[in-house]
Amino acid sequence: MHSPLLILNAGSSSLKFALYQRGGGEPALLARGQFAGIGRALAFSAKSADGRALTPPDAAALAAIRNHADALLLLPAWLQANNLGSALAGAGHRVVHGGTRFTLPERITPESLDALAALEPLAPHHQPHNVAAIRALMAQQPDLPQVACFDTAFHAAMPATAQSLGLPRTLEAKGLRRYGFHGLSYEYVTGRLGEFCGGRLPKRVIIAHLGNGASMAAVLDGKGHATTMGFSTLDGLVMGTRIGSLDPGAILHLMREERMDLKALEDLFYNRSGLLGLSGISADMKTLLESRDPRAAAAVELYCYAIVRHAGSLAAALGGLDALVFTGGVGENAAPIRAQICRALAWLALDLDEAANARGDSLITMPNSQVAAYVVPTDEELVIAQHTARLLRTLVDEIGR
Amino acid sequence: MHSPLLILNAGSSSLKFALYQRGGGEPALLARGQFAGIGRALAFSAKSADGRALTPPDAAALAAIRNHADALLLLPAWLQANNLGSALAGAGHRVVHGGTRFTLPERITPESLDALAALEPLAPHHQPHNVAAIRALMAQQPDLPQVACFDTAFHAAMPATAQSLGLPRTLEAKGLRRYGFHGLSYEYVTGRLGEFCGGRLPKRVIIAHLGNGASMAAVLDGKGHATTMGFSTLDGLVMGTRIGSLDPGAILHLMREERMDLKALEDLFYNRSGLLGLSGISADMKTLLESRDPRAAAAVELYCYAIVRHAGSLAAALGGLDALVFTGGVGENAAPIRAQICRALAWLALDLDEAANARGDSLITMPNSQVAAYVVPTDEELVIAQHTARLLRTLVDEIGR
Repeated sequence: MHSPLLILNAGSSSLKFALYQRGGGEPALLARGQFAGIGRALAFSAKSADGRALTPPDAAALAAIRNHADALLLLPAWLQANNLGSALAGAGHRVVHGGTRFTLPERITPESLDALAALEPLAPHHQPHNVAAIRALMAQQPDLPQVACFDTAFHAAMPATAQSLGLPRTLEAKGLRRYGFHGLSYEYVTGRLGEFCGGRLPKRVIIAHLGNGASMAAVLDGKGHATTMGFSTLDGLVMGTRIGSLDPGAILHLMREERMDLKALEDLFYNRSGLLGLSGISADMKTLLESRDPRAAAAVELYCYAIVRHAGSLAAALGGLDALVFTGGVGENAAPIRAQICRALAWLALDLDEAANARGDSLITMPNSQVAAYVVPTDEELVIAQHTARLLRTLVDEIGR
Repeated sequence: MHSPLLILNAGSSSLKFALYQRGGGEPALLARGQFAGIGRALAFSAKSADGRALTPPDAAALAAIRNHADALLLLPAWLQANNLGSALAGAGHRVVHGGTRFTLPERITPESLDALAALEPLAPHHQPHNVAAIRALMAQQPDLPQVACFDTAFHAAMPATAQSLGLPRTLEAKGLRRYGFHGLSYEYVTGRLGEFCGGRLPKRVIIAHLGNGASMAAVLDGKGHATTMGFSTLDGLVMGTRIGSLDPGAILHLMREERMDLKALEDLFYNRSGLLGLSGISADMKTLLESRDPRAAAAVELYCYAIVRHAGSLAAALGGLDALVFTGGVGENAAPIRAQICRALAWLALDLDEAANARGDSLITMPNSQVAAYVVPTDEELVIAQHTARLLRTLVDEIGR
C-alpha cells in the first residue's frame, strides 16, 4: 500500500482532513473526516471513500485534544488502526491567503511558512489556523513534504482594474487590493467544465460558488478575470451570516451614530448579517426554503437579487456571457435558488430547462439556449491532492537526479 | 415684472442660487450665481440668463458675510440693484435627504423643517447646510413660501430588494437602507429623454450622472428601479475624490492595522480617494485626460471600469437595457470617457456612433443600435423651480378658495 497524502483544511475550531492514495493517474480518495469543536466540545467523525464509518481514536485521547497540534498527533496511529497506511507521503494544505507572492501551489519551507504567517493580518480569521496546522505538522514530522494551495491563487491573473479597490496607491502598496477567494473551487470547476461542454471550455464563464461563504468569479479563457469577494471574504454576495457588499458610508454611520467599534463591526459583518441577519431565523438555505415566514422569503429574495446583480456586473467584465455554473452546497442542491437566478438572467439569452434543473442535471438550460447553465459539484480537496501529488513527483525527480 | 423664484443649493462653504421668472408655462431662468468660500475667502459671481455678468453687492457688505444667513440677507437689495424683481415669490431648495418620509417635493413648515433637521445624521456633510439655509430664510422672511426638493425622492419607488443594504432588520428600522441620490438630475433627464426618443420613453434605461459626485440609476418605465449610490453618497462609482464601493473587510483592516479612526476614514473616503487618490494628480477629469502620466490613465481606466461593471449590474436589475444616458459635467463633456464606456458595453448590442459621440450629439449610437445611447445635459435647478412654481400655484388655489 502506498503511503497516503494527507489533505488538511484548518479552521478556527475545526480540522477537516482527507486521505488520498497516489497512483499512476489521479489521486484516489481513501477517507475523509474532521475534528470539530477543538477547544470546546470535541467531536470526531470520519468515513471511508465508500461511506463506511471509520473507527475513531479512543475517547481518552480525543478528550485530551486542546488544539490542532494535539489532533494531528493522533493521526498516524489512527491511520494504522484503520488500515489506511503506515506513514504519510506528504501533506497538502488549503491556505486561504497567498498574498501577492504565492500565485501557485508551493512546497513549504521554514522560510515560506514565515512568509505565510506574515500574511495573517490580511485574513485574520483563517490564515493563523492554516499556518498553525502546517507548523504543528512540521514540528511533528520535520521530513514530511508539505504543500500549500491558495484560495487566492486562481484570481492572480485578473487585470489590474479588477484587482484595484480604488484606494490610493500608498495603501495599495500595503496590500490593500482585491485578491478573491474560493480559488480552489474555481480551479476545480473550470477544470471539469470542459467535460460538460464537449471538451471545449466556453470563453466567457461565470462560476457561482454558493456555500455558507459565497462568491462568484468571471473566468475568461479559463483564467480568473474578476470576482465578487475582494480584499476580504466579506465582500460581494449575501452569505449565510456575512454581509457582502456594503456602502462604506453605512459603516461610518454605524461608527458615528451606533458607536460600534472594530470588534462590534466585525461581529456584525461576519456573524450576524447575511441570511441569518435578514431573516432573523437561520443562515441555512434549506431551513429558509422550507419556512413559511415572510422574513425567510425576503432573505432568500435578497440573496438571489445580489447574485443576479453581480452576475450582470461580471458579465460586463467579460464582455458578455457563454456559460453560468453553479457549485457549492447551495449551488449544487438548491434547485429553487438556481431557478430564481436563471429566470432573472433570461435577458442574457439564458433559457432555463425547469425540469432538468429540478432533477439536478449537469446541464440545466435548453439545448438551444445561447448561454448554457451547469451544475458542477466542487471538490477542493481533490485539487489540493492533485497539486500535492504533482509537487511530490517533482521532488522525487529532483532527488533522483 | 413677476416676483421671481429663488432656487438655492447650499453646501458647506458655498451658496449657489438661481432666479426664475414664473409665467404661464415653464419657469424661465433670469440669473444664476453663487457665494463661494463662505467663512473663508468669499467670492461672489452671478450672470444673467443670457450670460451677462451682474453687478455684485458692494465689497464691504460681501466682506462682512460670515455664514449662509448673512449671504441671504444681501439678496433682496441685490435683486433690486440688478432689476431682477423687488421681492421674492418663493424659494425652492435642493435638500439632499428626504429620509423615508419625504418622497415628493414638500412645502416647508416649521414642523417639516424640524423633520428635515432630524435627518442630518443620515447626510452629515450636506443636510445641515440645506437646513441652515431654509432656517435663515424663514427667519428673515417668515411669510415667504419655501419648498424642499429631495435628491432621494426619485428612488423612493425602488423595490424592497433594491432598498435593502443586507443589514439586520433592527438596523434597517433605524434608517440604514439604500436611498440613492442625484434624484433631481434623474428626474430632469427622465423627463427630457422622451423628447429624444420620438415622444416615447424607453422601458429600461440606465442614466449615468457623472459629475464630481457620480452615480447611476436604473429607470424602469420612468421610475427609479435601482441605483449605485446607497445609504450615503460614497457608494458605487469611482468619483472625483470619493471612494465608491469598497469591501467592508478593507475598512476593518484599515481600522485594525492602520489604526484609522472615524475621522481619518471619513477624510480618506470623501476627500482623498477616487480619481484624485488613484492618480495622485487631480480629481478633475479634463486634467487627467490631458495628462501623459500613466497614473492618470490608470485612474481614468478604473473610473470607466467601475461604470461598466455597475452598468451590467443595473441592466441585470432591469432585466435588460434599451437606453443609456450620459449626464453631469463628465457625462456631458468627456467624449473619450463616453466612448470607452460604450465600447465596453458593445456586448449589450450597443453600437456607438464614434463621430456623433465626438461631436457631442444628443444621440451617440448608430441608427440600428439595439441599445440607444444619449447625452442629455442635466438641469437640477429647473426641476426645483418647476416643483416650487407648481406648489405655489396650489397654495394660491387654496387661498383663493
